[in-house]
Amino acid sequence: MSTATTSSPTPLDTNWNYDFVNIASNLTPTLHHWRRRALAVVQFVPDEAEFFAVRPVPVTTDIADFERQIWGTGEQFVLDFGIHVVGSVSMHLDAHLAHMDAPCRLRLTYGESPLDVTMDMQGVETTISSSWLPDEVINIDNTPSTVRISRRQAFRYLRVEILATSPKYKVSFLNVECLCVSSVSQDLEIEIPKFKTDLLKSIDQVSMFTLRDCMQEVFEDGPRRDRRLWIGDLRLQALANYATFKDCDLVKRCLYQFAAVARADGSVPACIFHVPKLSPSTDYIVDYDALFAATVEDYVVASGDLETGKQLWPTVLGCLKRPLAHVDSDTGMFDCLRAQGFKFLDWQKGLDRNAGCHGLLLYCLKSVNRLANLLGDPAPYEAEVKKMTNAVAGFLDAEGNVVSGSQSQRSFASVAWLTLSGALPEQVARAALLNTLIDPQAIRPLTPYLWHHVCDALASVGCYEECMGLITEYWGGMLEAGADTFWEAFDPDNARASPYGDVRNNSFCHAWSCTPTYLLRVKLAKIVIMTSKDDVGKTTMRALDREWITQSYKDYR
Amino acid sequence: MSTATTSSPTPLDTNWNYDFVNIASNLTPTLHHWRRRALAVVQFVPDEAEFFAVRPVPVTTDIADFERQIWGTGEQFVLDFGIHVVGSVSMHLDAHLAHMDAPCRLRLTYGESPLDVTMDMQGVETTISSSWLPDEVINIDNTPSTVRISRRQAFRYLRVEILATSPKYKVSFLNVECLCVSSVSQDLEIEIPKFKTDLLKSIDQVSMFTLRDCMQEVFEDGPRRDRRLWIGDLRLQALANYATFKDCDLVKRCLYQFAAVARADGSVPACIFHVPKLSPSTDYIVDYDALFAATVEDYVVASGDLETGKQLWPTVLGCLKRPLAHVDSDTGMFDCLRAQGFKFLDWQKGLDRNAGCHGLLLYCLKSVNRLANLLGDPAPYEAEVKKMTNAVAGFLDAEGNVVSGSQSQRSFASVAWLTLSGALPEQVARAALLNTLIDPQAIRPLTPYLWHHVCDALASVGCYEECMGLITEYWGGMLEAGADTFWEAFDPDNARASPYGDVRNNSFCHAWSCTPTYLLRVKLAKIVIMTSKDDVGKTTMRALDREWITQSYKDYR
Repeated sequence: MSTATTSSPTPLDTNWNYDFVNIASNLTPTLHHWRRRALAVVQFVPDEAEFFAVRPVPVTTDIADFERQIWGTGEQFVLDFGIHVVGSVSMHLDAHLAHMDAPCRLRLTYGESPLDVTMDMQGVETTISSSWLPDEVINIDNTPSTVRISRRQAFRYLRVEILATSPKYKVSFLNVECLCVSSVSQDLEIEIPKFKTDLLKSIDQVSMFTLRDCMQEVFEDGPRRDRRLWIGDLRLQALANYATFKDCDLVKRCLYQFAAVARADGSVPACIFHVPKLSPSTDYIVDYDALFAATVEDYVVASGDLETGKQLWPTVLGCLKRPLAHVDSDTGMFDCLRAQGFKFLDWQKGLDRNAGCHGLLLYCLKSVNRLANLLGDPAPYEAEVKKMTNAVAGFLDAEGNVVSGSQSQRSFASVAWLTLSGALPEQVARAALLNTLIDPQAIRPLTPYLWHHVCDALASVGCYEECMGLITEYWGGMLEAGADTFWEAFDPDNARASPYGDVRNNSFCHAWSCTPTYLLRVKLAKIVIMTSKDDVGKTTMRALDREWITQSYKDYR
Repeated sequence: MSTATTSSPTPLDTNWNYDFVNIASNLTPTLHHWRRRALAVVQFVPDEAEFFAVRPVPVTTDIADFERQIWGTGEQFVLDFGIHVVGSVSMHLDAHLAHMDAPCRLRLTYGESPLDVTMDMQGVETTISSSWLPDEVINIDNTPSTVRISRRQAFRYLRVEILATSPKYKVSFLNVECLCVSSVSQDLEIEIPKFKTDLLKSIDQVSMFTLRDCMQEVFEDGPRRDRRLWIGDLRLQALANYATFKDCDLVKRCLYQFAAVARADGSVPACIFHVPKLSPSTDYIVDYDALFAATVEDYVVASGDLETGKQLWPTVLGCLKRPLAHVDSDTGMFDCLRAQGFKFLDWQKGLDRNAGCHGLLLYCLKSVNRLANLLGDPAPYEAEVKKMTNAVAGFLDAEGNVVSGSQSQRSFASVAWLTLSGALPEQVARAALLNTLIDPQAIRPLTPYLWHHVCDALASVGCYEECMGLITEYWGGMLEAGADTFWEAFDPDNARASPYGDVRNNSFCHAWSCTPTYLLRVKLAKIVIMTSKDDVGKTTMRALDREWITQSYKDYR
C-alpha cells in the first residue's frame, strides 16, 4: 500500500491533439445487439483423442426439458450457446419445493474453451491479473427473479455451480440467454466466395466470427482479455475487415485515437484505453510504433480517404523516429541494443529480433514512401530504404540462410520479415523461407500473430500452396480442436500452453489470429477460390451463425 | 436434481383469508433511510481477555487519510461503522498508478461480530444454508466507478479484501457508506427514563438498536438471518415495541399476516414469508401456535383496538386446538407425546418440554379468557384452565421443585413457564424458581428467548433484584463482549457456540433478545428507574446513535 497519485489529468495530456480526440469520438460506432439462447446442456467426457482431452456431449438439446429441472446445493450444469458469444447474460430463477428460506449462491464460469468449464479457477498463478479469470459468484435473495449480469463476458459455454440453496428448496433456470453485442450488424451482407474445400470455407467463417466478436467500440485485441486496442492487432484486424465487413470508419477512429495521444518524441503508444476516457497505455513496443505507419497506408489504400492520410502524416513520420534510432548509421543494420524500447515480433523465448526488426522497419519505411506517393508528396525515406536494403546482406549466411545476432540464429520471424521487406531477391527469399520451414533448429513462432506474417511472406514470394498448407494445418488445427473463434495462442503439442503461465488466463477469441480470411480472399484467391463470377454469393452474419450452429449440432450426433 | 413442482398457487391458498391479506398489505410500513459513513479503519489484535479473543484497535479514524491510500492485490482492510447497521453499501472506486488494465476483484465480508471479519468463510459446515454467510465477491471492470451493492446487509464491520488488481494499478476507496433502513424513523422521539446505572441505560439502548434494526416491512427475527416473521419472536418484539417505539400498526399487520394464512385445522404456521408475496412457511411449532393468542391479547391491551381483537377472535380460538390436543383429558397434564408437532421453548438439547409446555399453554388460555373479557364475550376456557391448574401439582416433587417427564427433569424452562402460568402459589413458585437458579443439575437456557421468560417469571413473583441480576449478567455480558445489538445465541463460556454448528451462521442482531428494554421499563421500573417525573426525558434514535458511537470511540482510546 502506498500513497495515491492523482489519476488525471496526466502529464501526457498536454501533448494530446484534441481535434483528433474529437474526430475519433465522433466516429464512435453504433453497437448492434441480438439475443442468443442457450441451446443445450452438455457434459464433457474424457477423450484423449481430443485436443483438450475432453469431448462435449449433449445431455439434452431440449431446453424446455432443462427448464423443468430443479437444482440444489452441490449440483451443476454446463450450457452450450452453440457458438462463441460476447455480451451480457440474463436468466430467470424460480424456487421450488417448500420455500426459499435462504439466499441462492451460484458460481458462473464463462467458458471460451472446454478447459474453462472443466478446470476450476483456484490457485491460478499467472504474470497477469487473476481478475481476468472468467468466473463470478452471485447471490440471489428472492425469487422469482430475473438476474441480469451487467458485466460483458465472452464465452461459448456457461457453467453454473449451485454453491448453496437450502434443504427446503431448489431452483430452476429459465430463459438463460446472452444479449450479444458487436459493432458489426447481424444483418450486414458479406461476400462469400466459393472456396475449394469446406475446411477453407470454415476457416474463412471462423476468421469472421473472431473479427466480429473483437469489433466493439474499438478493435479490441480480445473480448475476454484485455479488451484493448493494440497497433499490431489493429493492423491485422483492419486487413481482415477490408476483405470482409469493410468498416473503414472504425479503423479511421482507431488511427485517430492513437494519433491523438502520440508522445512528445513522436512515438505512438503500443496500446490505448478508450474507457472511461481515451488514454494512452504506458506500454511501448518499437515494432508496433513502426507498424502504425503501415496501418495508415493500408487504410488510405482501402478507403481512398486521402484527407485522413494527410492529417495523420505528421504522426506517421513521428512514429518511425524511435524505430529508426536503432539503425546503425555505418552498417545500416537494425541493432536492438542501439536504442531503448521493447521489441516484440512474437512471444517465443530466446528469439533474436535484429533481423526481424530490420525487415519490419524496412517494410514500414517503404509503406510510408508509397503513402507519400499517394498523397502527392515526395517519398521521405528513399535514402534509409536504400541503406537498409543494402544492409540486408549482413543477415545472410554463406548458404543463403537468414541469420540474426551474434549467434547467427535462424528463425521464422527473421526470414518472414526480411522477406516481407522485399529487400531480398525473390528466389533468395523463397529459398531461405522454405529452408527455414523445414529447419528443426529454426526458432518457430508461438503466436498466430507471427504465423500470419510467415504466411504473408510465403504468399509474397508466390509460395501459395505452402501458405495454404500452413493455414489449413495451423488455423485448421484450432478448428479441429473445436474452435469457433481463433485463439490468442495455439501450440498444437500443448493444450495448456500460455504466454502468461496459465491457460486459464488465455483469450480464445483474439484479434491477431483473425487473418486467414484476408490471406485466403486477397493473397490466395487464385488457388483457393473457384474463379467463376457466379461463385461469389452474399450472406449475412446471422445466416453464417445459423449455418455454424447447425453444423456443430450435427457434429454432436 | 428432481422435477419442478409448480410454485403457485399452493393448495393452502384456498384456506386463506384474503380480506386479512389486504388489511396486512394496507399496513405495509413506510421504510425510512439514512446514510452512515465508515468511521474508522480498524485492526483486530489478539487479546485473550476479550470474549472473542480479539480486540478492535483503530488504525485511523481520519477517513480522509484512508481515502488517500491505495490498495493492490493481496491487501485488505476492515472499516468500522461505529454501530450495527442494516442497509445497502456503496463505495466509489478509483484506479491509480499506471492504468487499470484489468478488472478489480474484491471480497466484501460484512461483520456483525469480530469473528465474521477475522475468520475466513471457507469450509463452513452448518445445518442451515451456507448462502447466509456474509461475504460476496464483486468485480469492477472500469473506474472511476460508484459501486452500489443492491443486497441489504447487516453489519458493523466491513472487511474488504483486494483479491486482484494488476501490477499496473491499485485502487482507492471513497465515500464508503451504508444507506441504512428501518420502519423506525431516526426522528422518532422515545421516552428515556433515568436509569440507576449506566449499564442499565446501555442495555436499554442496545435493546432499542436491536429492535430498530429488526423492524423492517415486518418484525424480522434477524436482519442478517433469516429475515422472517416468527410468532415467538414477534410476541417479544411487540412487548419491547409497546414500551419504546409504540408502533402498534406494524404489530397489527403481522397479526393479520398470520391470521390470513391460518390452516384448515385452525393452527397458525410458526413463521411466514412476506416476499415475494405473503406465504406461510411449512414450519409448525406447537408453543408458537399457542403464543399467537397471547400476542393478540398483548396487542389489544396495548392499542385498545378491540375491533382487531374481534376480527382475529376465530384465529385465536383456532390456534389453541392443536396445543390443547396435547392435554390428557384424565390428568389434565400436557403430554408432548399425545399429539404431533415440534415443541420448542429453547434450543437446549435434552430439555423435557412437558412441564414447560403445560405452563405456556395454561398462560395462553388465561390470556384468551382475559381477551374475551375485554371484548365483552364469555371466557371460553374456564374449564380447561381449572383442570390444568389443578394438574400443576403433578409437576412438583416432594421438595417443591418443578419436575418434568419420566426422569423428573429439573429445568429453567419448566419452572419459568409454570411460574408464568400463575398456577402455583406465589411463594411456591418463587422458591422453586430461586432453587432452580442455583441448582447445578437444572437444564439451563441456551437462548436469550428462554432467558427472557426466566426473567419475566422472576419479576412476576416479585424477585426484582434477581431479575435485574440476570439481565445485567447475561445481556450485560453481551455488552461487555462488544455487542451493540443483542444476539441470537450467547454462551458466556463459548464465543463460538451456535445452534447450527458454526458461529459464522449466527445472527448477532436478533429479535428475541431485544426484551430487556421491556423488562426494565415495565417489569422492573420500580427498582431500576429514578422515580421523579422530571427524570423521564425524550430523545430521538438519531441522538441515541450519536451518543453510542461517541461512546464506542472513547472506549477505543
